[in-house]
Amino acid sequence: MKLLLIYAHPEPRSLNGALRDFAVAHLTAAGHDVQVSDLYQMRWKAALDPDDAPGYASDKPFNPATESHRVFVAGTQPADIETEQAKLLWADAVIFQFPLWWFSMPAILKGWVDRVYAHGFAYGVGEHSESHWGDRYGEGSMAGKRAMLVVTMGGWESHYSGRGVNGALNDVLFPIQHGVLFYPGFTVMPPFPIYKTSKTDADRFEQICAAYATRLDNLFLDQPLRFRRQNAGDYEIPALTLKPHLAPDRHDLGIHLLGEE
Amino acid sequence: MKLLLIYAHPEPRSLNGALRDFAVAHLTAAGHDVQVSDLYQMRWKAALDPDDAPGYASDKPFNPATESHRVFVAGTQPADIETEQAKLLWADAVIFQFPLWWFSMPAILKGWVDRVYAHGFAYGVGEHSESHWGDRYGEGSMAGKRAMLVVTMGGWESHYSGRGVNGALNDVLFPIQHGVLFYPGFTVMPPFPIYKTSKTDADRFEQICAAYATRLDNLFLDQPLRFRRQNAGDYEIPALTLKPHLAPDRHDLGIHLLGEE
Repeated sequence: MKLLLIYAHPEPRSLNGALRDFAVAHLTAAGHDVQVSDLYQMRWKAALDPDDAPGYASDKPFNPATESHRVFVAGTQPADIETEQAKLLWADAVIFQFPLWWFSMPAILKGWVDRVYAHGFAYGVGEHSESHWGDRYGEGSMAGKRAMLVVTMGGWESHYSGRGVNGALNDVLFPIQHGVLFYPGFTVMPPFPIYKTSKTDADRFEQICAAYATRLDNLFLDQPLRFRRQNAGDYEIPALTLKPHLAPDRHDLGIHLLGEE
Repeated sequence: MKLLLIYAHPEPRSLNGALRDFAVAHLTAAGHDVQVSDLYQMRWKAALDPDDAPGYASDKPFNPATESHRVFVAGTQPADIETEQAKLLWADAVIFQFPLWWFSMPAILKGWVDRVYAHGFAYGVGEHSESHWGDRYGEGSMAGKRAMLVVTMGGWESHYSGRGVNGALNDVLFPIQHGVLFYPGFTVMPPFPIYKTSKTDADRFEQICAAYATRLDNLFLDQPLRFRRQNAGDYEIPALTLKPHLAPDRHDLGIHLLGEE
């Protein structure tokens, strides 16, 4: 299969760097084709701005969505954006590996999302009307591809447990897993979290690699997170609220998973 | 009072630009001192990297937390970071205004957080032991200051309601409101969301400004979000899990608010 690793850490000689190298070696040995986008090494431009829309006429206000759509359709996007989109279209599965900084992605990775996720590519896809609110949340350009977050954290597993002070990990990651991955159509695998990273000695690294290897070996076999599809009947359209008989009276993020009724 | 506006939008001639100008004029007319950090105009460097740690010896791996701490303590941080930290210390309240891109901040603003929130300044503050897990979540350098998110969105209010497909707004914003604002000690005000931004004509803009003015006028009077303080007895230490008798058997993000039992 074809695997794309989107990787964001400033130091190759880090736990993250070692895990990236391990994943590439393991996947390659298993016969997969692997591409890596090493955002720091690529000096990825993080801030979406008018330079991302060649031909933008500055006599009118810069609208990110409108301009993104224009250059996407015209085929005049910056080369770095086009290259990343081509990698996404090529891949059967995409792994996003990063340290959790302030409960989200490092800025350089957020800037990859902001810029690569063009209008017409990752959003603004499909019919947009009062009866069909776009091909999104389970449909879209990434449909049929799998995605997984590999996330390192200084905190303990209990801090990210269901009653942990940081918020349950899948809730903290909801804006990414549901909003960045499921939205354009990815099938989202459970995350692979690595906690307490400052306590990683050689033994622990070996354990982490063994667990990671299992996740990689089963990437196309494991059960994904069962997010509800927007257009499969569970949501009212265009209000996009979960129908009242599903998970009735609840309003937590868990209601957006099938099986939570 | 002293108000700091952290602002991230690439186009001054936008709804966001107009709201920024409105807020500055309104607050100034009310007698407040106002500073604005206009991140796009400042060409803010988004990616935290070794250049943020002058004197870093590249013969050892770059550890973001360790190096951030070193230069913070030594007073040798880059000038742009020091300047923003000084503004935070100066302010009585901080407003973060941005368009919600992919259910989070634009990368340039995330990069402001990643770089300005130094170790020893916004994290790594206070005793860290098995009995006291830092001055954080309600304590820390920003204690006594208020903060509020002003967020524009293309989507509808119902899409971000308690049962909306995007997730309830306060849950989507939890990594920011709880993880970026409450963590270093801010008192967090309810967000001021602006929905359906593409449908903003002059009448609607006037309504938005009137509502925003009320929020600004009451910034120091309104009730904040009642996040539970980490070190006030509600959490086990060091597991940092909510004690079993509080909001028993629940594991949604709402349990971290007082009054949810």
